[in-house]
Amino acid sequence: MTVTKVGVLGARGKVGTAICEAVRAAEDLELVAEVDHGDPLGMLTDAGAEVVVDFTHPDVVMDNLEFCITHGIHAVVGTTGFTDERLETLRGLLSSHAETGVLVAPNFAIGAILMMRFAVQAARYFPSAEIVELHHPNKADAPSGTAHRTAEMMATARTAAGMGPCPDATSTELEGARGADVGGVRVHSVRVTGLVAHQEVILGTQGETLTIRHDSLDRSSFAPGVLLGVRSISRAPGLTVGLDAFMDL
Amino acid sequence: MTVTKVGVLGARGKVGTAICEAVRAAEDLELVAEVDHGDPLGMLTDAGAEVVVDFTHPDVVMDNLEFCITHGIHAVVGTTGFTDERLETLRGLLSSHAETGVLVAPNFAIGAILMMRFAVQAARYFPSAEIVELHHPNKADAPSGTAHRTAEMMATARTAAGMGPCPDATSTELEGARGADVGGVRVHSVRVTGLVAHQEVILGTQGETLTIRHDSLDRSSFAPGVLLGVRSISRAPGLTVGLDAFMDL
Amino acid sequence: MTVTKVGVLGARGKVGTAICEAVRAAEDLELVAEVDHGDPLGMLTDAGAEVVVDFTHPDVVMDNLEFCITHGIHAVVGTTGFTDERLETLRGLLSSHAETGVLVAPNFAIGAILMMRFAVQAARYFPSAEIVELHHPNKADAPSGTAHRTAEMMATARTAAGMGPCPDATSTELEGARGADVGGVRVHSVRVTGLVAHQEVILGTQGETLTIRHDSLDRSSFAPGVLLGVRSISRAPGLTVGLDAFMDL
Amino acid sequence: MTVTKVGVLGARGKVGTAICEAVRAAEDLELVAEVDHGDPLGMLTDAGAEVVVDFTHPDVVMDNLEFCITHGIHAVVGTTGFTDERLETLRGLLSSHAETGVLVAPNFAIGAILMMRFAVQAARYFPSAEIVELHHPNKADAPSGTAHRTAEMMATARTAAGMGPCPDATSTELEGARGADVGGVRVHSVRVTGLVAHQEVILGTQGETLTIRHDSLDRSSFAPGVLLGVRSISRAPGLTVGLDAFMDL
Repeated sequence: MTVTKVGVLGARGKVGTAICEAVRAAEDLELVAEVDHGDPLGMLTDAGAEVVVDFTHPDVVMDNLEFCITHGIHAVVGTTGFTDERLETLRGLLSSHAETGVLVAPNFAIGAILMMRFAVQAARYFPSAEIVELHHPNKADAPSGTAHRTAEMMATARTAAGMGPCPDATSTELEGARGADVGGVRVHSVRVTGLVAHQEVILGTQGETLTIRHDSLDRSSFAPGVLLGVRSISRAPGLTVGLDAFMDL
Repeated sequence: MTVTKVGVLGARGKVGTAICEAVRAAEDLELVAEVDHGDPLGMLTDAGAEVVVDFTHPDVVMDNLEFCITHGIHAVVGTTGFTDERLETLRGLLSSHAETGVLVAPNFAIGAILMMRFAVQAARYFPSAEIVELHHPNKADAPSGTAHRTAEMMATARTAAGMGPCPDATSTELEGARGADVGGVRVHSVRVTGLVAHQEVILGTQGETLTIRHDSLDRSSFAPGVLLGVRSISRAPGLTVGLDAFMDL
Repeated sequence: MTVTKVGVLGARGKVGTAICEAVRAAEDLELVAEVDHGDPLGMLTDAGAEVVVDFTHPDVVMDNLEFCITHGIHAVVGTTGFTDERLETLRGLLSSHAETGVLVAPNFAIGAILMMRFAVQAARYFPSAEIVELHHPNKADAPSGTAHRTAEMMATARTAAGMGPCPDATSTELEGARGADVGGVRVHSVRVTGLVAHQEVILGTQGETLTIRHDSLDRSSFAPGVLLGVRSISRAPGLTVGLDAFMDL
Repeated sequence: MTVTKVGVLGARGKVGTAICEAVRAAEDLELVAEVDHGDPLGMLTDAGAEVVVDFTHPDVVMDNLEFCITHGIHAVVGTTGFTDERLETLRGLLSSHAETGVLVAPNFAIGAILMMRFAVQAARYFPSAEIVELHHPNKADAPSGTAHRTAEMMATARTAAGMGPCPDATSTELEGARGADVGGVRVHSVRVTGLVAHQEVILGTQGETLTIRHDSLDRSSFAPGVLLGVRSISRAPGLTVGLDAFMDL
């Protein structure tokens, strides 16, 4: 078995700590550098890191990535704040390091990625489609970002397939009962103490329904997706956006 | 085994037909009269009916019941339209027939009755409570009558227990996402082709949730409740409102 | 809009009746022939049928298809009993009618097809995978054929991806508690009055689960899939097995 | 508002820490003593504790309770290992301290208690009853203790109501598919990474099903039940077994 040497940037943060632990537990990976705020990036090259995982901050991530790319180290990036302009900058840097790969992904939870993918694939086959997302009551936004994005993507798929609006004979509605309308897909936000983060996509046609549900019970759910990225990135030179590019779907 | 003689009023209607079938299939019951629009009520006395089931029409039900009560026949009534005034009239009629019993119930689906009962019993123990009801898209009202009533009853139980509002930190809401507000209990109405009639009551407290779900997949779901009424009414002289009075809860 | 002329074989059977109804309700389809036991197949050619739907019987389906193929009529077939030998015979017949298409499918319920497809696609990303199928108590086999097939396909996908066995520390088991073992995927069969036909595929990885659930509440659930077949078959000359070939997955 | 003074025994353990936190957060309770292994029990009397919570160890709990009872301090006990003999000893001690109350409970999760209660209440109204329990794969026993106990209690309720066996026409079964048989109630144990502790009781009758589901997502779920015990125990002199005695069900 080939063992890949992995460095982690943001290694002492909450997410970084969990990633270090996951890398340590994987037989085909070796954790060679744990770098955090104040540490020199040279730790990565000194340790011979082949892949770096970056869960840091929008303020420092571009410098981190420039260092990695110019030293031929692949990167798997979960840090937020990637505008189109930043992605373009990365493509520019990568163009002169043809063998280096960078993955930038907004979401590493494999279950969430598959839920969205399947919801979009199925959308064109079901006249009815609604989303119920359920979260703890400390959440500020309703619907959740994931639910909103899922609904938009499903609405786009429905339009592309030439489908009309979801059937709905509601003539008497208590305000809000039918949820929020996102491009014709109704989204309902449940907020209940004891819940973590859950989403259910309900699709229906004559005599049958298909329900795709994702339950995230623990913030560590990004770890398997990060490892999938680490294991895949060396075979994907250039810039990749979204972990699903590495999933055989 | 004692066998009870049962007559059915509205015997050729959709519901009546199903009830006749259920009575016929029960070993401890004998179907002795199938009466419908145009038939003389004397068929019931001629056949020696001990209990009558009435699923007819608000226009005729009071005449039917007067006949039953004055002839000492117990009645199980699913016909709608019972105002307080009508119930008072029944009590008056029954007062001079001390051994006769009449059950008037808005809902005979045992699962629905239990769902509502349990939801109300549990309401005082959970800071959070929401309802998701799911129906076919031909339904005109949102939320459903059952969901609305459940929410009201839960809200009353919460108030009686001195509970404050359900926790909810939502500060950014896409209109309707958080559902309809029924006395502080949020109700969400899903309308999807392929569904029949479903309701989920979700209660949450620290670290745990309790979900009570009722699925009605077939309109015949009233039959077991009607038989429970038929078997219980002879031991319950006077007027009884609601089938739960006969359930040992 | 081009309107396709459709003939139905087995038109007076339960399934055939539902299909006739669905064809009549579709604006882009015209029901031109309703053929059943005893009727001459010439009714199809007389009426100018372009596509024929066959839900008949293993004893007659091969004759029906030979007639259709030799007359250049496309066919969508839900009749059972297709052995490899029969499929080979069909391929032979079709080889001399290059523009004619025949679809043979064991399952036309789109939701069931997608559930299986998604379960297999997801299987390689989740260390844990189990199936719970729930049916009415009159069912003779446990697990259901669909659940058994789903588990087998998931097991194959897991093996292909080099995954080990599902984690399971059970050391004390009451006989049967952990379900049936189908290639390493545990399958649980629930039999409850009031249910129709339901299946839940539960996949889990660190901190998250993905659940894919199919609910079939009504035997009419094959209709949308049959129409999809009817609309697709003219663009698919030769033999196609399985409706998913016509789904853009 | 009267404020009750609370002492916690086992205050530095995992559960004890969570209870201390919950007591501190409650406006009507004051945490006056945090006692753990090695600390003198006199801390409780010095601080004027009115109610003590004991989540310690079977080896020390009886001494703890003797101290509390002889000093007139009420106790809420979650420590395990209470045999009938131990309960009898407690009753003896309490008989000479007429105003002191002790609650011993095997389970403080309100949702779990209600699930079991409702399952038993509903059992007599549904011909079909099965349990699906779902846990993380590190669990050693299948089914879970809670599922086993729930099934036994439901089986007893069914027998008491004169119900026959659950309908089941299974004639071909892959070994284990129909789950474990606990007094005629089938129990299915799902083990999936990412799950915590979940149980679903499924009841069915003609045309409808009732499902009662408990999800425990976090080990802190005992806290609200412990506080309910603390608030109720001073009004319940003598020995009380089971938290449901303090729930108005």
